[in-house]
Amino acid sequence: MLIVQKYGGSSVANAERIFNVAKRIIEAYDKGNDVVVVLSAQGDTTDELIEKAAEINPNASRREMDMLLSTGEQQSVALMAMAINALGRNAISLNAFQVGIDTNSNYSNARIKTISTERIHLELEKKNIVIITGFQGINKYDDVTTLGRGGSDTSAVALAAKLNADICEIYTDVDGVYTADPRVVKSAEKLEEISYDEMLELASLGAKVLHNRSVELAKKYNVNLVVRSSLTRAEGTLVKEETKVEKMLISGVASDKDVSRISVIGIEDVPGKAFSIFSLLAKEKISVDIILQSIGRDNSKDISFTVSKSDLQLALDVLEANKERLGFKEITHRDNVAKLSVVGAGMATNPGVASLMFEALFDAGVNISMISTSEIKISVLIDEADVDAAMVAVHDKFKNATKNFRN
Amino acid sequence: MLIVQKYGGSSVANAERIFNVAKRIIEAYDKGNDVVVVLSAQGDTTDELIEKAAEINPNASRREMDMLLSTGEQQSVALMAMAINALGRNAISLNAFQVGIDTNSNYSNARIKTISTERIHLELEKKNIVIITGFQGINKYDDVTTLGRGGSDTSAVALAAKLNADICEIYTDVDGVYTADPRVVKSAEKLEEISYDEMLELASLGAKVLHNRSVELAKKYNVNLVVRSSLTRAEGTLVKEETKVEKMLISGVASDKDVSRISVIGIEDVPGKAFSIFSLLAKEKISVDIILQSIGRDNSKDISFTVSKSDLQLALDVLEANKERLGFKEITHRDNVAKLSVVGAGMATNPGVASLMFEALFDAGVNISMISTSEIKISVLIDEADVDAAMVAVHDKFKNATKNFRN
Repeated sequence: MLIVQKYGGSSVANAERIFNVAKRIIEAYDKGNDVVVVLSAQGDTTDELIEKAAEINPNASRREMDMLLSTGEQQSVALMAMAINALGRNAISLNAFQVGIDTNSNYSNARIKTISTERIHLELEKKNIVIITGFQGINKYDDVTTLGRGGSDTSAVALAAKLNADICEIYTDVDGVYTADPRVVKSAEKLEEISYDEMLELASLGAKVLHNRSVELAKKYNVNLVVRSSLTRAEGTLVKEETKVEKMLISGVASDKDVSRISVIGIEDVPGKAFSIFSLLAKEKISVDIILQSIGRDNSKDISFTVSKSDLQLALDVLEANKERLGFKEITHRDNVAKLSVVGAGMATNPGVASLMFEALFDAGVNISMISTSEIKISVLIDEADVDAAMVAVHDKFKNATKNFRN
Repeated sequence: MLIVQKYGGSSVANAERIFNVAKRIIEAYDKGNDVVVVLSAQGDTTDELIEKAAEINPNASRREMDMLLSTGEQQSVALMAMAINALGRNAISLNAFQVGIDTNSNYSNARIKTISTERIHLELEKKNIVIITGFQGINKYDDVTTLGRGGSDTSAVALAAKLNADICEIYTDVDGVYTADPRVVKSAEKLEEISYDEMLELASLGAKVLHNRSVELAKKYNVNLVVRSSLTRAEGTLVKEETKVEKMLISGVASDKDVSRISVIGIEDVPGKAFSIFSLLAKEKISVDIILQSIGRDNSKDISFTVSKSDLQLALDVLEANKERLGFKEITHRDNVAKLSVVGAGMATNPGVASLMFEALFDAGVNISMISTSEIKISVLIDEADVDAAMVAVHDKFKNATKNFRN
């Protein structure tokens, strides 16, 4: 078997943890597998480097930031190779340039274009465990790029896809994907399996386990992903094309507090107005999530939408600056809101799911201010203060409903 | 003018010092010069990384050590580019791979083979200040190598040679080359100029200002080197082919305490014995410095020589193991010795130099146990305990003699 394993920064934070991980890697290797390992930077290294840079230049160019930050992963891989060598096995560390992980030139948030596998295969043939820097690539100018948030997951999945790996194991500090955040919802259960689409919705809805770009890639190339803990021996959660059975009506509940709501009120009801608003925001690279349009008074309409909290001020500024052109009466906004979502492939064929969610929220006395649905998810916008209680209420409602449904 | 500047680790140890250096770089740039800068890793970074590695694997492979250590310089160059940008000038950082600094595969002590200048010229044409990682290269496998002690000086000189730079400025924490270590000899004077050969002797004799490999390169490619302080505005010392005048009869006094002496006693006086001893030591990569052969009793001879303290035990072991083959009576050794040297191009034409040195040592009551001379230097082996006092005595003797000579 060819196995790709990815370990996050906390798993390699110090010498002791590096040896723990080294032993797990060797376990897989000693069973006769080819093992390719992808690592993040140690512990807080990346944050420390960001701080160092901020002290010197708070507006440092993204190219130079990538040059700086990529050193963190290079340190991890060298140290891991040393640890594996110390335990008597052959290992070699490779950085993005040595592997040939080619990306576009969107510094700090680059996309992988191609990966050369020649060097990796060469090292695997020499019976080396191959340790590769996550999070980084090289663009056509030979400059270092980084892949943005969750970048090491993406590196691992892209390598697994390109190498045709039998499995891609993502080791993290939780032991799998849960039906809700277990720190908030005590009754949350670990999923044995989840489909790419469900995982994708959960990831983009705020579940921190896997970054959605890595899940997208896994889905596209049909990579078998396992999410498991580097600290325990628990089985983890398998992310794959189709899942066997639905354990619950939904596969998970997720919440996202990084949400603010903007309402543009009293827009003239003529075609093209919504387009004008959202193209303005797009030009500023502001991502808009839930959108709701309602008919206002006097032949006008209101448009509400959500953006991340960090984009709120910029969005307000852009809209105010174009008030005349857009022709609206006023803008209101709230930043004390949150998004609660349920995700499940069973949803489309089960019309009761939405009403079950609304019932749970009503029972818990939570007011809903916006609703958005897709094939496999329902999201609602609620007060930020309510979100933890609401998550528990919704999760347990579905858990009980599933029990009743089965009995 | 095309200027290459090199700054050591202490010059870029923190944000404040980085800005100090950035301002000096910008001074040169604002005068219309093309500026290429070579940096070492910040302050203690390299030592900290070595410590980290030792904790994990005290016998880490040199390839992985180079992979690890090279990150230090990459951090420096990125931070410096950010600082220069913050001060409103264009700068770009480049690592060894991006520049194309090709070396052989002797990890941890690699030699530069070629340097591509394409990327550097491209960035200079864009009016960028180019900041390059010192100390490191890339071998034919695309693996990272490091150049060993004094590596960043070597990088700077090699770049200056290849780019045909008008001058290569080595910034350090002393403001030039002195006639003796000013921490030991209060009356030491800064040299305005020194020739490559003299600098080479001083460097290999223990003066820590420049590494001898960088001076060798400078001599080979006739690179004008300036050694100056990054902390003061002092003029520094120019290292070049020929110097104008001799300020002193000698250009400097240097001492080296990393010396031990081995005497092989009672060797049969037949040809080939000396060769056997030194080829054995060469096979173990032990460098031998001063050699002295003397006729012993009973048709036998004694051979004494010096090796570095760290090689002493290995040398003794190798000789003992071959006692029968080499045919000697016994071996004695001393590790509390030191080498004191005077260097100066004026020496060959001035027969009084040696006697002046011996007179100074005699006056100071210092016993000489070995003597070695070349065209431009005289070295003596003395007790380690005497070396600082001996250096002062010899230095001041020559200083006074020069005054008398001139008056």
